[in-house]
Amino acid sequence: MRHEVISSVQNPLVKRLHQLLNRKGREEQNRFLVEGAHLVEEALNSGAQVVTVLYDESRGIDPACLRALDERGTDVQVIAVSSAVLGKLTETKSPQGIVAEVKIDSENWAEWIERASERDYLLLVLDEIQDPGNLGTILRTAEAAGVDGVVLGEGSVDLYNGKVVRATMGALFRLPVFLRSLPEAIQTLQQQGANVLVSSLKENSLAYDEADYRGKAVIVIGNEGRGVSEQVARLADGYVHIPLYGRAESLNAAVAAGILVYEAQRKRIGQAVN
Amino acid sequence: MRHEVISSVQNPLVKRLHQLLNRKGREEQNRFLVEGAHLVEEALNSGAQVVTVLYDESRGIDPACLRALDERGTDVQVIAVSSAVLGKLTETKSPQGIVAEVKIDSENWAEWIERASERDYLLLVLDEIQDPGNLGTILRTAEAAGVDGVVLGEGSVDLYNGKVVRATMGALFRLPVFLRSLPEAIQTLQQQGANVLVSSLKENSLAYDEADYRGKAVIVIGNEGRGVSEQVARLADGYVHIPLYGRAESLNAAVAAGILVYEAQRKRIGQAVN
Repeated sequence: MRHEVISSVQNPLVKRLHQLLNRKGREEQNRFLVEGAHLVEEALNSGAQVVTVLYDESRGIDPACLRALDERGTDVQVIAVSSAVLGKLTETKSPQGIVAEVKIDSENWAEWIERASERDYLLLVLDEIQDPGNLGTILRTAEAAGVDGVVLGEGSVDLYNGKVVRATMGALFRLPVFLRSLPEAIQTLQQQGANVLVSSLKENSLAYDEADYRGKAVIVIGNEGRGVSEQVARLADGYVHIPLYGRAESLNAAVAAGILVYEAQRKRIGQAVN
Repeated sequence: MRHEVISSVQNPLVKRLHQLLNRKGREEQNRFLVEGAHLVEEALNSGAQVVTVLYDESRGIDPACLRALDERGTDVQVIAVSSAVLGKLTETKSPQGIVAEVKIDSENWAEWIERASERDYLLLVLDEIQDPGNLGTILRTAEAAGVDGVVLGEGSVDLYNGKVVRATMGALFRLPVFLRSLPEAIQTLQQQGANVLVSSLKENSLAYDEADYRGKAVIVIGNEGRGVSEQVARLADGYVHIPLYGRAESLNAAVAAGILVYEAQRKRIGQAVN
């Protein structure tokens, strides 16, 4: 741990970190920001590549974060900053007293696929999810449901967008998420015997509780407006849908994902009593 | 239909409607605003008490709304306004070209309860939901799942908050929602034989797919942070929970509500194959 105090928003480190609030800056630096004590603690405890932790000197450092920092040892730079500096690096209305800079550590798809060839899994594939709250909530739900990984297709909202990160409630640090071209990823999964079920209201679509989720199972969820793209949908081994009993035209994407992955896991674990 | 054009944001009608963007104004006037062509169309077609429709004269009126207005006859005042006026009455970033003023039409709880005494139902009870997006999404999901009604307890976010209304995607106009003191409402339901299941991680809580949702079933969902209040929880006939297979501490409230009501409806309808 290194201690210093930064009170100028013109400080070069502050200026560099400020760029991480935008996708362009994140992609150039291959790093992102995590704000709030709970998320910073999760990042530290999950083994994420935390580079720097900045905390509001007027408030002091959160005790749980301090414990997590102590356990991590000396690899994280800890810096006290003014409230103004922290305000420049955070997005939420009720400002959090702490923010962390974390290296983007892409999961290795080829390795995952190779290891997965000999075991069963439940994977969730997301096709162009646009709303950051939805994407974050889907990752939170997938991790809670015990999904083995998530594949995020091109054209999605940025995984490291602050709203996405916050809505994951830390699941981002615990769940393997792969950024892939979907047609290629789906064909790779099918080559190792995966059953790819696309969420769709097509005529031959099964009710979600009638589908077979055993073995290597892949559930594909589509864009909030138009569902799964035709290019991806035509690769499906089967279609599933959640019945709409009211007059609603659709469900929220995160709610739909939750209902599907929990039903799949319920069937896989065999907890059902009827 | 009455036609006139308003271009001044100082117009008394515009000033009065602007107050509906706040809870205080809505409560004083007993009216709320609905923005966007899709929602306005839903309000008109569902028989909601639409008083006034204002549209951007530079964009013209949405064709589907125009059809819905024609079908409604002459009870709705239609006013062309400038973009500046519409901007003053809307909250979303990409401004919608149309907004409607709707009377708050509270559902009659006593009547509903009396009619419900002789039939089965599935009711959702919400205890102090705070996030407007969550509340709106829960109502959207409940309507889609065929829930018969929602009881919203005191201390919740305002049902007529713009974000809530938009997130319902129109379900607000189709689903009976009752604003009630929860302990009293729950006891009334129990007196007519309802089985009240509270979402909770208490020790004696059943997995959500093992509970009995037949007959008169009531599911209670709690606040995003602390769950269901002790005062409400102690009235329960039973407890249910959604298992967390990962390391997540909880699910998003709307996702949890979706999983619970769909499982309840699945069991009630008896569509399950295993």
